[in-house]
Amino acid sequence: MPTIVVDVMPKAELLDPQGKATTGALHRLGHGSFENVRIGKRFEFTIEGEVTDAVLAEVRKVADEILSNSVIEDVVAISVDGVAAEVR
Amino acid sequence: MPTIVVDVMPKAELLDPQGKATTGALHRLGHGSFENVRIGKRFEFTIEGEVTDAVLAEVRKVADEILSNSVIEDVVAISVDGVAAEVR
Repeated sequence: MPTIVVDVMPKAELLDPQGKATTGALHRLGHGSFENVRIGKRFEFTIEGEVTDAVLAEVRKVADEILSNSVIEDVVAISVDGVAAEVR
Repeated sequence: MPTIVVDVMPKAELLDPQGKATTGALHRLGHGSFENVRIGKRFEFTIEGEVTDAVLAEVRKVADEILSNSVIEDVVAISVDGVAAEVR
């Protein structure tokens, strides 16, 4: 069964407190080479049947309207079985 | 500056309550074509300088020991600027 992956990240221009705390913790633990860390979400959809354009359109709609909060987050990538279907 | 992405997902053999709830909600909202949804985390590291093998080894160590809980999660992918560096 094909897998569709949707990646959602906090908008680049906004502060990411979770990532900021992780960056600070990594630096305190001696991992200073990481300039910055941002933390987002990864959704894996399992689809029955083929991935048609209609299915992809539905995934895009769901990603924009339900899985992400467009005020603070961006859908950065949608991929099917590891191949980028669409990047905005 | 190069970006390293680390993807962490709940182990396949474990229940993912967050994903289960999302699957149920999508079905109730009329999106029945999604068999199953699993939700994980996506970490974006910004690195100063070049991505050497040493940096990748450090990222792998941090991913395994700090960013994921190996009892319930797997590091499914590490990629550099969109190119898979390693998949386990």
